[in-house]
Amino acid sequence: MRVLVLGGDGYCGWPTALHLSARGHEVGVLDNFSRRLWDHELGVETLTPIRPLHERVDLWRSLSGDAMPIFVADMTNYAAVADAIATFAPDAVVHFAEQRAAPYSMIDREHAVFTQVNNVVGTLNLLFALKELRPECHLVKLGTMGEYGTPNIDIEEGFIEIHHKGRTDVLPYPKQPGSFYHLSKVHDSHNIMFCCRVWGLRSTDLNQGVVYGTMTPELARHPDLINRFDYDEVFGTALNRFCVQAAIGYPLTVYGGGGQTRGFIDIRDTVRCIELAVLNAPEAGEYRVFNQFTEQFSVADLAARVQAAGRKLGRAVRVQHLPNPRVEKEQHYYKAANTRLLDLGLQPHRLSDSLLDSLLNIAIEHRDRVREDVIFPRVNWRDTHNRRATTRETAKVREDIPPRLQISHP
Amino acid sequence: MRVLVLGGDGYCGWPTALHLSARGHEVGVLDNFSRRLWDHELGVETLTPIRPLHERVDLWRSLSGDAMPIFVADMTNYAAVADAIATFAPDAVVHFAEQRAAPYSMIDREHAVFTQVNNVVGTLNLLFALKELRPECHLVKLGTMGEYGTPNIDIEEGFIEIHHKGRTDVLPYPKQPGSFYHLSKVHDSHNIMFCCRVWGLRSTDLNQGVVYGTMTPELARHPDLINRFDYDEVFGTALNRFCVQAAIGYPLTVYGGGGQTRGFIDIRDTVRCIELAVLNAPEAGEYRVFNQFTEQFSVADLAARVQAAGRKLGRAVRVQHLPNPRVEKEQHYYKAANTRLLDLGLQPHRLSDSLLDSLLNIAIEHRDRVREDVIFPRVNWRDTHNRRATTRETAKVREDIPPRLQISHP
Repeated sequence: MRVLVLGGDGYCGWPTALHLSARGHEVGVLDNFSRRLWDHELGVETLTPIRPLHERVDLWRSLSGDAMPIFVADMTNYAAVADAIATFAPDAVVHFAEQRAAPYSMIDREHAVFTQVNNVVGTLNLLFALKELRPECHLVKLGTMGEYGTPNIDIEEGFIEIHHKGRTDVLPYPKQPGSFYHLSKVHDSHNIMFCCRVWGLRSTDLNQGVVYGTMTPELARHPDLINRFDYDEVFGTALNRFCVQAAIGYPLTVYGGGGQTRGFIDIRDTVRCIELAVLNAPEAGEYRVFNQFTEQFSVADLAARVQAAGRKLGRAVRVQHLPNPRVEKEQHYYKAANTRLLDLGLQPHRLSDSLLDSLLNIAIEHRDRVREDVIFPRVNWRDTHNRRATTRETAKVREDIPPRLQISHP
Repeated sequence: MRVLVLGGDGYCGWPTALHLSARGHEVGVLDNFSRRLWDHELGVETLTPIRPLHERVDLWRSLSGDAMPIFVADMTNYAAVADAIATFAPDAVVHFAEQRAAPYSMIDREHAVFTQVNNVVGTLNLLFALKELRPECHLVKLGTMGEYGTPNIDIEEGFIEIHHKGRTDVLPYPKQPGSFYHLSKVHDSHNIMFCCRVWGLRSTDLNQGVVYGTMTPELARHPDLINRFDYDEVFGTALNRFCVQAAIGYPLTVYGGGGQTRGFIDIRDTVRCIELAVLNAPEAGEYRVFNQFTEQFSVADLAARVQAAGRKLGRAVRVQHLPNPRVEKEQHYYKAANTRLLDLGLQPHRLSDSLLDSLLNIAIEHRDRVREDVIFPRVNWRDTHNRRATTRETAKVREDIPPRLQISHP
């Protein structure tokens, strides 16, 4: 199939593009490199030294023989989006091309507005382009498990049958998102559901859990195909960040009590889930939701597992509970359904000691690249003006870190 | 109380500002006159010859002795919004300042994107301004009953208790909005709920039904205080539009079968509901929803009532069922709760023959101002490029109207 991967230069998009290409699909990649720009803005860098997209795509072609056309386009620019859709003529579009960090969206008003406008308008542009140019194309959209929040009932996959006052209906599952970023995904979901209904578009909304890992079989074919690996407080997600912290002797920063439970997924499963969705398109007019995660963990669970893995490698790993910079329940019920991708044939990679070993080893290998001053959480959900890391502020940031978190360089 | 009415130059905002002023509140009005601009864009005009805001405000002061400061500000301009909040220091903000027509949002991509960005960013700016400058202020936000769609169970006021797999939670009522405009209100609702939770803001989200009527006691004090009255296919809503159609001998344009049932409210009750919300503020951190309508009618019901009222005035009124330009169920269950405003003391004006008589008489009085070519629905939900009325196209538009709708001038 012809699959256009939007945001194909990013953490999930790049391995997805390679996986689909390796599985025989014709793949195009669209990106505007804004993810790399945000690193410059925040003064952070991926742990792994990723190569420019054009170079990676050339390398992939030399290794595999498969070309992968690049479309440099901003999703908020309709003409550019429409041109890519018209030119590539995809059977499926995989849409990762959004601002994807909750803390980034909570920095201040500008970042909140940017996140919602960027994500919502980008997706609206895509919906219009598909309707006008490629109405049979399957839109595979990345949502997030964070759209649901932490309700006190089981989380279902997108819809729930409600019995109320003697009547019954199947309705969209109520959403309680926890940041301006998560809200943008809820807005997207409503917009997409509407366009499927009124225009007959077909879409799969993948409510993905927290992704961990960095390696897939395709990426492993050459060091210069290496994927990004974020560990900073803004773009680094829990498990990957913990591994870097363990590697450099920085305490694992658990926010609050650590009882926050979420769905998690190995990046090797992310790319397979995408292909399963692509291969099994919904009917015209159908909007369906798959919960894309394989296991549930609490943050404290994860920290304990990284601690144990670190010890096995001879490293002393401390866990440090910090005042929670987010506003979220730290003890709550959490049980989410995730059978629809399993029914399509997903065979999950469970979080294993060997994966933790390999993540820790990647982190140790690149430890010289770690900037410790970007790890401590400084984006507080309760504030509307959060200072970001800037060169000028770096010295001051070190002072802000509580003494018990000052690192003795190992 | 000090109440700032955002969108105070509009159909609901202007009578609300006067009502609150007459009831002894200190009222400020914010507007950027975009509603008047959209009339120019579409080549339409309110049936009633409204006066400029500055003139109306001056007239109100001369009649009542009460000043009403005007803030000319676009809600998407944060500096302007923040300046108004800081300067006026309101106890409550009533937020009507959004693009409010479903057909306008469905014209094409530009109008869809404009509606969502304008409404969502405007409300985000307001939320940040309140948090930063006036965190105790009560945000009274106008939503719409159209956020709920037409579920097959009873509609509750914002939240619903769900029993599921042996557990129970009270969750946000699932939303199934029916246009890009209605979607923008759902996006707003989620954003506001979040800000109440994380920042401790207080807000009342008024899910308003279709408003009808044009007169309130305050407006009646002088002809130059007259309110706008829209009858065109884009901004004219069902009942008001029907009255104009009856007045000029244009068939009542019922979309589809007319079984579509919605909540309706007299504009005299709109202004009272707003004051009831303002006088009964929620707690800090509370986000509450009131369904603001007083009666349910189907579109066919309304047409039949206007037909009967017209006959009483000696006018032959035909009902014409048109292919539905919207994508919506024409036969459906509809039962929505609306007790919370009644509990606060609302005494509803029911739709009566005398109101219909007076609406018809207003329409007859201003019949010379009616542009027949702007009534026929030309914004189709299924199309992504809907032609709008422009001077250049007016002649052609007449040709587009099916012969049976050509009007013989009475």
